[in-house]
Amino acid sequence: MRILGVDTALRCTGYGLIDVENRSYNVVDCGIIKNSLKASYSNCLFRLSSGIDQLINEYDPDLASIEGAFYLKNAKTAMLLGMARGAVVASLSKANITIYEYAPTRAKQAITGFGRAGKEQVAQVLSGMLSLDVSTIPDDATDALSLAVCHAVIADNQNGIHLKDPI
Amino acid sequence: MRILGVDTALRCTGYGLIDVENRSYNVVDCGIIKNSLKASYSNCLFRLSSGIDQLINEYDPDLASIEGAFYLKNAKTAMLLGMARGAVVASLSKANITIYEYAPTRAKQAITGFGRAGKEQVAQVLSGMLSLDVSTIPDDATDALSLAVCHAVIADNQNGIHLKDPI
Repeated sequence: MRILGVDTALRCTGYGLIDVENRSYNVVDCGIIKNSLKASYSNCLFRLSSGIDQLINEYDPDLASIEGAFYLKNAKTAMLLGMARGAVVASLSKANITIYEYAPTRAKQAITGFGRAGKEQVAQVLSGMLSLDVSTIPDDATDALSLAVCHAVIADNQNGIHLKDPI
Repeated sequence: MRILGVDTALRCTGYGLIDVENRSYNVVDCGIIKNSLKASYSNCLFRLSSGIDQLINEYDPDLASIEGAFYLKNAKTAMLLGMARGAVVASLSKANITIYEYAPTRAKQAITGFGRAGKEQVAQVLSGMLSLDVSTIPDDATDALSLAVCHAVIADNQNGIHLKDPI
């Protein structure tokens, strides 16, 4: 099973693809889609949407795991993040890819067993699971890989008994 | 010049296309893209994004006019509206269509001369401008036509001196 994790944001979106087989995880690719602070909203969304299309065409993921946005308080921030999410989800759904979403604390918990684990701790456990020193890749790419691994772990646990409906 | 107005929302998006020539406005098409309350987010965004693609393919608009979202206070509402906007803007920008956005009060002002005009008053003036009884079409389609006309009026006034940058 190939999972595409996406840590979505307008100015910098991280992505990470993993292959899962018998509880072992192999990183296929990871990176970021970066937009200049000066770029217009429509240009950011164009690049984001086209970037996701490109990843889908190149790697043909089976499903996607994105960050839920349950925690936002500020309407303006929520609008901007919503726009980025909308562009990403539209691209994924047009390719018929099922999308799961996880709160950041859920991802930390799935990986380290502890929802309030620090960034360092998550990085350490993740590096071991993926046989990849995640300190060498951008933070947003690490977060995307966390989301992909989070889904794999939860889907695997007790035959997916803790799996919520896709969005 | 052909303008596509879009009044974006996750569950019901209105669209309205007008042709503008010498301050006369002809309605090309208008309607709504409706999603069931039970539909998943990804399904809503799939239908929204595909619907906009279809309108672009069929009518080849020169530019688009959408509602700005400057007025939202609630983060959850802003997130949902943002997702719908992101899907729409991604589709438009992938088709290389320039997008302008207007606050609801700006559209009312451009059409009736009064930013706090009531729905009835806007409908009346708009019906006259478009030679179409807008009471016969859905509210969201009327709002979309208002956005298209708003851009046409502002672009025409004093050679577009009041025109803001596209988004």
